[in-house]
Amino acid sequence: MSTLALAMCLPALADAAVYNPDWQVFAVAAAFTLLFGVMLVLTARSPNRSLNQRQAFVLTTLSWTMIPTFGALPFTFSELELSYTDAFFEAMSGITTTGATVLTGLDFAPPGILLWRALLQWLGGIGIIAMAIVILPTLQVGGMQLFRTESSDRSDKVIPRAGQLIAYIGFIYLGITLVCAFAYWSAGMTGFEAVVHAMTTIATGGFSTSDASLGHFASARIDAIGTVFMLLGGLPFVLYLRALRGNPGALWNDSQVRCYLIVAASTIATMTIYLYIMQGVGVGQALRLASFNVVSVMTGTGYATVDFGLWGSFAVTFFVFLMFVGGCAGSTTCGIKIFRFQILYATAVTQVRRLLEPHGIFIAYYNGKPIADSVSDSVMTFFALYVFSFATVAIGLGLMGLDFVTAVSGAATAISNVGPGLGDVIGPAGSFVSLPDGAKWLLSLAMLMGRLELFTVLVMLAPAFWHR
Amino acid sequence: MSTLALAMCLPALADAAVYNPDWQVFAVAAAFTLLFGVMLVLTARSPNRSLNQRQAFVLTTLSWTMIPTFGALPFTFSELELSYTDAFFEAMSGITTTGATVLTGLDFAPPGILLWRALLQWLGGIGIIAMAIVILPTLQVGGMQLFRTESSDRSDKVIPRAGQLIAYIGFIYLGITLVCAFAYWSAGMTGFEAVVHAMTTIATGGFSTSDASLGHFASARIDAIGTVFMLLGGLPFVLYLRALRGNPGALWNDSQVRCYLIVAASTIATMTIYLYIMQGVGVGQALRLASFNVVSVMTGTGYATVDFGLWGSFAVTFFVFLMFVGGCAGSTTCGIKIFRFQILYATAVTQVRRLLEPHGIFIAYYNGKPIADSVSDSVMTFFALYVFSFATVAIGLGLMGLDFVTAVSGAATAISNVGPGLGDVIGPAGSFVSLPDGAKWLLSLAMLMGRLELFTVLVMLAPAFWHR
Repeated sequence: MSTLALAMCLPALADAAVYNPDWQVFAVAAAFTLLFGVMLVLTARSPNRSLNQRQAFVLTTLSWTMIPTFGALPFTFSELELSYTDAFFEAMSGITTTGATVLTGLDFAPPGILLWRALLQWLGGIGIIAMAIVILPTLQVGGMQLFRTESSDRSDKVIPRAGQLIAYIGFIYLGITLVCAFAYWSAGMTGFEAVVHAMTTIATGGFSTSDASLGHFASARIDAIGTVFMLLGGLPFVLYLRALRGNPGALWNDSQVRCYLIVAASTIATMTIYLYIMQGVGVGQALRLASFNVVSVMTGTGYATVDFGLWGSFAVTFFVFLMFVGGCAGSTTCGIKIFRFQILYATAVTQVRRLLEPHGIFIAYYNGKPIADSVSDSVMTFFALYVFSFATVAIGLGLMGLDFVTAVSGAATAISNVGPGLGDVIGPAGSFVSLPDGAKWLLSLAMLMGRLELFTVLVMLAPAFWHR
Repeated sequence: MSTLALAMCLPALADAAVYNPDWQVFAVAAAFTLLFGVMLVLTARSPNRSLNQRQAFVLTTLSWTMIPTFGALPFTFSELELSYTDAFFEAMSGITTTGATVLTGLDFAPPGILLWRALLQWLGGIGIIAMAIVILPTLQVGGMQLFRTESSDRSDKVIPRAGQLIAYIGFIYLGITLVCAFAYWSAGMTGFEAVVHAMTTIATGGFSTSDASLGHFASARIDAIGTVFMLLGGLPFVLYLRALRGNPGALWNDSQVRCYLIVAASTIATMTIYLYIMQGVGVGQALRLASFNVVSVMTGTGYATVDFGLWGSFAVTFFVFLMFVGGCAGSTTCGIKIFRFQILYATAVTQVRRLLEPHGIFIAYYNGKPIADSVSDSVMTFFALYVFSFATVAIGLGLMGLDFVTAVSGAATAISNVGPGLGDVIGPAGSFVSLPDGAKWLLSLAMLMGRLELFTVLVMLAPAFWHR
């Protein structure tokens, strides 16, 4: 909370610099949030800092609910005069790096609000990387125990080491953001636009300074820069550190990274060919449009350069399913994630071989190591739960009167933290503002669940959680 | 093939009885099919009748492809003058008990064609029950090894016993069909309509004698009869036998049956409440519409009394997901099936308890027995494969130019063997005839895959299948 209050001072400065009275809004929100944060620190000081499994689940979910609760304050207090529902939706969409928005008229919005949205995503991005390194592996959620390292241990001894690791990764995160901002700036963005977009690119968040998203700049160079840095945001950040520490092959030797790049390349190729053959777009333009928009949807960034909902019915169906893919574990992306598909595939192949030779012994491998039963079980349960959660949210949205395309793509885009949906209402050219309040709360819940890998939230619904 | 030829004589008789020249079509098709069947018998006679695992997969898939290949002949040769694509689609939809149709003007179609469609579904229904008892459990497909009985063994000794079992079940199947036909007849159908509908009800197939499906009769009594017998078609037929053999509790004591009835009841209740509150339908009428159409979609029958696509967007989203549910294993229904949801649920609960207490030992149960790892693995892989196959078919349909609702509901309805999809084109009030040929072949493949529990077909795509 205190960090959040501190972060609110930046937009306050930005607004003050252009003499926008909204700086007071940020100052008040910051004071309010800081007060609450300090109160928490004072009341919760205790020498005993170890958490049991249940407490870790509650703490994680609570933190990711409190941040948007307070992060929404500047949106309600500001001249935008958003209802609290809209403000909470926007803040949740920010911190979970989703990028779905209820705002229009971004091109004329005060810099403070634009910076605040970008900051929420940027903090959400590094927050989820830290969580994937320290917390999720010990919680053994959805196969994340695969990525357990020495630092994934909450005993007192190791915490300083984990803190150090996250600090290093934080520097790398900051460094890539700066490089990205410089690249955007040199390609023609203003300094402010470059910083905002760099923050939301690397966080695979997708908030922009324009209603037309990155399409506003109509620049092939900016599209290319966006594509590259969205892809970089989808890589496991811990591998950047390893690469910098004298193991330059760390990235390419990781089977998840290879698979991620292959999936991205083949999806781009498919869409390029489709645009060229079926929609009559020139090869160069087809490649540019396909690369940017496919990477944007697959990594869950949610930028758009055009309304790809108009690329014919194949594109619509294709993009809805592409939303589920995501990037690598330990990146800023959401979705089911590449390593889970690899484990599902390896398990399915082993199954088939067992069907053919019932008495043979076959072992599934991931990244050169045999997959433990507990890991493949978690991954498969995660997958099933993902599908059920998606179906439940889609049916819920249908109940609130949303049409089929909006309900299905809205559920998919929220749970996978992509951003825009498809169709006329919430598509790349639309906005979530016209949805009923109930739908906005349900979508906020879906974003939270997706971001925290489902189990972290859903485990609290189990009666067993509250026993004893 | 020879049985199929024999079956073709029935519609020939029906047509001959009303002096329709189509009887010759059936006679020619029967002769042709019989010739081929006898040729196969003669060329393939061998004392060695045991099959290895690979051969069993190939034989199963081949049989279920050959039957519609020949079953389509009457449709092409008849006065309907269907293209072979349309004829094959109709025959595949029949034998897989799907019920999707390319025909319109059924109310004025010759009796032979109507009877032939019903016969295909009726034979497909008993065929799949036999397969679920004898073949699928030994192939260990998608957790079907749970239903292994003494009869599920292809060694020579046991085959007579399995044959006897299937004969008993065949009598029960015939018996229920006759009761259903009598009930329909006493509720006002003509004898012919009653027989045709009884065959397609118990097979959860869904072909009708009218374009308006069962809605043609506009009779609450007929709707109620249909609802009850569709539900009966979704029960495991082997339990009917056990109940008749002096264990009347066999049905109710089976956890799959209980769960199936609970799911059906709660889904009907949800839809009734929705129709009453949100659509302003009177309680009685809401219950009647909800019961019939929910049971029809859930069991994959595919009858309709109204175009439920017009019940608002909630109903559309709800029905698309309901298509995946299905009935019990060993019934005539398709879809993911109730026992798989039970196993997924039990596994997920065990997972959650393990998350909370990483050192505890928790065991998942099904029907009072611990679930073997191999079973839960198969079921989870089956589920993932179902979702991927569905997504692939939906994207493929999108590529052929079908709009989102048609592509998604078409893929769902085909792979789950339901019948009609949703939307203007293939909804309960539409027909599949306007789809491009490629889409019809893709949908036929999806029906086959869904009917044979995916693995039986997909296993042949594995390179390992063709090694050695």
